[in-house]
Amino acid sequence: MIIPNFKRLPKHIGFIPDGNRRWAQSKGLPKEAGYNYGIDPGFELYKICLELGINEITFYGFTVDNTKRPPEQRKAFQKACVDAVMKLANRDAELLVIGNTDSPMFPKELLPFTKRVKFGQGLIKVNFLVNYGWHWDLNYTLRKKGFTGDWSHDSLIKSIASSDISRIDLIVRWGGRRRLSGFLPVQSIYADFYVVDELWPDFRPEQFFRALEWYQEQDVTLGG
Amino acid sequence: MIIPNFKRLPKHIGFIPDGNRRWAQSKGLPKEAGYNYGIDPGFELYKICLELGINEITFYGFTVDNTKRPPEQRKAFQKACVDAVMKLANRDAELLVIGNTDSPMFPKELLPFTKRVKFGQGLIKVNFLVNYGWHWDLNYTLRKKGFTGDWSHDSLIKSIASSDISRIDLIVRWGGRRRLSGFLPVQSIYADFYVVDELWPDFRPEQFFRALEWYQEQDVTLGG
Repeated sequence: MIIPNFKRLPKHIGFIPDGNRRWAQSKGLPKEAGYNYGIDPGFELYKICLELGINEITFYGFTVDNTKRPPEQRKAFQKACVDAVMKLANRDAELLVIGNTDSPMFPKELLPFTKRVKFGQGLIKVNFLVNYGWHWDLNYTLRKKGFTGDWSHDSLIKSIASSDISRIDLIVRWGGRRRLSGFLPVQSIYADFYVVDELWPDFRPEQFFRALEWYQEQDVTLGG
Repeated sequence: MIIPNFKRLPKHIGFIPDGNRRWAQSKGLPKEAGYNYGIDPGFELYKICLELGINEITFYGFTVDNTKRPPEQRKAFQKACVDAVMKLANRDAELLVIGNTDSPMFPKELLPFTKRVKFGQGLIKVNFLVNYGWHWDLNYTLRKKGFTGDWSHDSLIKSIASSDISRIDLIVRWGGRRRLSGFLPVQSIYADFYVVDELWPDFRPEQFFRALEWYQEQDVTLGG
């Protein structure tokens, strides 16, 4: 694969891999069959980002709200998340899984990754949101003891459950929907948001390259 | 003006009126001259939303971060916000101004509107974010006394500084940037995001109608 040159790259990219169920239906498959086709695209993205020298990437796995879906779908996306993390566990990466581990919906196999684990040289940080909930994330501040009374921006970022995940520069969402759907609200505050109309299992590298081409033309102001 | 029919309308719409400075520069004016041309477009939007029967609209005025800009710009957008609120103060609306009033950057003229004020029949809620900061908004929870220990989604929404502003269905941003820039992170979690490439002072009703046409084709899942 030939990777184009970019004059300015995001340090941290968030990926929202949406459209697995619609893709399955379009192929005459049951909805839950789509998730398994979402693992290879994620691995492809990891390889491209590693090659480009991106510092950090975050994948939206599943949310607390998603677990209310029919059990066959829930089991399928839980398994896909476990498989996706395991597929990276022998590659060069620093892995972190963030989500509500106090719930039976959190896959036990992923508990070892809830503190960042380094593989190889740890060239890229790779985060997975698994049984993640934006209210769980933000409320974490209130559950913590020893709050220092510092109300600053930095202090807030440090006090949320996902505080080991840095500010996001670019979010790429597959599947045509133009919404964040609860994806890391604090880290996404200043993120540029690019939508790919194709469904996630139809991932092609060119879709991502177009997002990066668009991104390099955006300004960065952070509200200033 | 002929307003089209829509089969499904958002209950609450957020407006990000960006591009005043770029517009001024394109006309050979100093950057700060652009804000004054942003008042009439906001009033037009108010009239259209009233006619359509929209329940609530929220305008992004200025943020705590914005006040770090050069003083002539800051004074210009502060004045534009005051003028915009005053222009609605005799119309049919329930007005609310949300922002950090503990700072000298908050215009004193708007203090009477920091609790919702009803004019006429109060047919539509109109919110203005003035000297707003997302960290100020979210941190408010921690400053409050009497926290009940309820960690739910509803409880979180009730505990932020902007708790009188409801969940947003559609966000329309003028000026081409595809980012939220700190706009009500909790209420925007499930909002559909539509970007108008034209700059805010170049507002035309058709731009908004296209956003509504697009919105009515979107599904509403709230993560389910």
